[in-house]
Amino acid sequence: MDHLVEKALEGDHRAIARLISLVENESPFASQIMANLYAHTGKAHIIGVTGSPGAGKSTLLDKLIDNLKRMEKKIGVIAVDPTSPFSGGAILGDRLRMQSHALETDVFIRSMGTRGSLGGLSRAAYEAAMILDACGKDVIFIETVGVGQSEVDIVKIADTVCLLLVPGMGDDVQVMKAGIMEIADIFVINKADRDGADRLEAEVNIMLDLYGSKAWRPPIVKTVAERGEGIDALCKALADHKKYLSESEEGKKRFISRIKMEVEEILRREIAKVVEEKWKENCDDNLIRSLASRSIDPYTVAGKILGEIFSRGL
Amino acid sequence: MDHLVEKALEGDHRAIARLISLVENESPFASQIMANLYAHTGKAHIIGVTGSPGAGKSTLLDKLIDNLKRMEKKIGVIAVDPTSPFSGGAILGDRLRMQSHALETDVFIRSMGTRGSLGGLSRAAYEAAMILDACGKDVIFIETVGVGQSEVDIVKIADTVCLLLVPGMGDDVQVMKAGIMEIADIFVINKADRDGADRLEAEVNIMLDLYGSKAWRPPIVKTVAERGEGIDALCKALADHKKYLSESEEGKKRFISRIKMEVEEILRREIAKVVEEKWKENCDDNLIRSLASRSIDPYTVAGKILGEIFSRGL
Repeated sequence: MDHLVEKALEGDHRAIARLISLVENESPFASQIMANLYAHTGKAHIIGVTGSPGAGKSTLLDKLIDNLKRMEKKIGVIAVDPTSPFSGGAILGDRLRMQSHALETDVFIRSMGTRGSLGGLSRAAYEAAMILDACGKDVIFIETVGVGQSEVDIVKIADTVCLLLVPGMGDDVQVMKAGIMEIADIFVINKADRDGADRLEAEVNIMLDLYGSKAWRPPIVKTVAERGEGIDALCKALADHKKYLSESEEGKKRFISRIKMEVEEILRREIAKVVEEKWKENCDDNLIRSLASRSIDPYTVAGKILGEIFSRGL
Repeated sequence: MDHLVEKALEGDHRAIARLISLVENESPFASQIMANLYAHTGKAHIIGVTGSPGAGKSTLLDKLIDNLKRMEKKIGVIAVDPTSPFSGGAILGDRLRMQSHALETDVFIRSMGTRGSLGGLSRAAYEAAMILDACGKDVIFIETVGVGQSEVDIVKIADTVCLLLVPGMGDDVQVMKAGIMEIADIFVINKADRDGADRLEAEVNIMLDLYGSKAWRPPIVKTVAERGEGIDALCKALADHKKYLSESEEGKKRFISRIKMEVEEILRREIAKVVEEKWKENCDDNLIRSLASRSIDPYTVAGKILGEIFSRGL
């Protein structure tokens, strides 16, 4: 295990991939691995990229990676699909385009799908990002498909959140994006050569005028990813936001709240394990029958179990 | 408090609304209220209704309610919006249409928005449904906006899940719906007078052929909610599914797993409270500084706190 961690810290992609798998599969070594790596984290720029299917996230990422590589940055990509395995096929095609980078030693690409809970997925994505951070990646992208609450939960673990919009995607999409609008640090209007790009920009500006009260006003960057247009401007906006985080009060706040979140997340997970264990001990057919017939209620049952766990009476 | 519960059990809508608020706001009486009501639950048919914005959920619900009222059913509606307060306005208009029923004594309507976590929202929706069940509602609708993982988590607390589809909504929508396809018990093709209704029906059938292996094959009901067409057929499908649940092995399984979920949910919530308290006690500027400088890691910190809580060493 120590050897594996050592190799990963040297940047070996095979070792990194194994560490991520161990942590993702909740290996008994997971906590130890993460604890060992922690001292090496805190250097990378974690960037969340989200937007509706068809917004051009993969193409944009492709071009961004090209640019960043020219700046000698080491890059990791975590591509997350919070929809069910059911739709796995639909997204895979998109992902394949990025594979041109996959074999190069300085870009590490990892896909993640739903396994069980949504909370589990964002945790796994976060831990993968931490591993990549510790192992020397300078920039880590977390890309998600879609625009629901799931995506909000996942990309908000990033330092900088980019929201991709496309002109003419219709009102429904605009409504659904609402949740994510609030956490976007940079707006990207992709396919900006299409009709309606200016109107979309004006709409976003109106929203920002109405609701944006933060010291950082999210810039709106227009791109045509397929032709590589606007990528330099986007790289600059990303660097600006990173600088802002390192210098501002808000950046400090976010930093502290992330540290707290890390501890809370571990606590939550460990407690879930205890609950599951205790509940398994207590839950038999008799109890289920009593609950089903309503002769006992779940609050009383839970109270008894809690009494056992916190025997000292907290 | 006893008086309030008594009034609610008699069906008084103002008392029911107050109980839901107390539980939603995590009043100190919440557990006691729910424990008291539990003996009266287990009779209602809880129906989840979901689909993309614009699919016509509210109109369909309107017509369904008319039908069910003619059968002398007592009805409750919980309208859940998992997107942020940001988009509250967009949905409110839709909701207003249903208000024609709001003043009638036999239809109770309640809206719920995000408050904090998504888990919190589905729990609140579930508890509201339990309260309505205890207070004599025969049919309880849980309506959600959108088609993301959030909606999946919310509607899966229902006995029967209806997924609304509309012809010609495009491929993106189809992909995003994937997660919810698996938990749909009834497919409704609304606006079925539009071009493409037959093709959509064929597509759903293909998906069901491919992935559906359950004893219950979800029926596909075509409706034109605005003209009231297909509502009788939908009512019949709902009744059929209810009958199926009461007689089948799968229905029994679902029933038991819901009972278990109830206890687990209470355990999780109560333990989370204890942990939060302990974490607040332990989390000071010094600790944050040590974590920020990476001189200690969050796994070690969490380990110490857990040691304090579970002093017997679980």
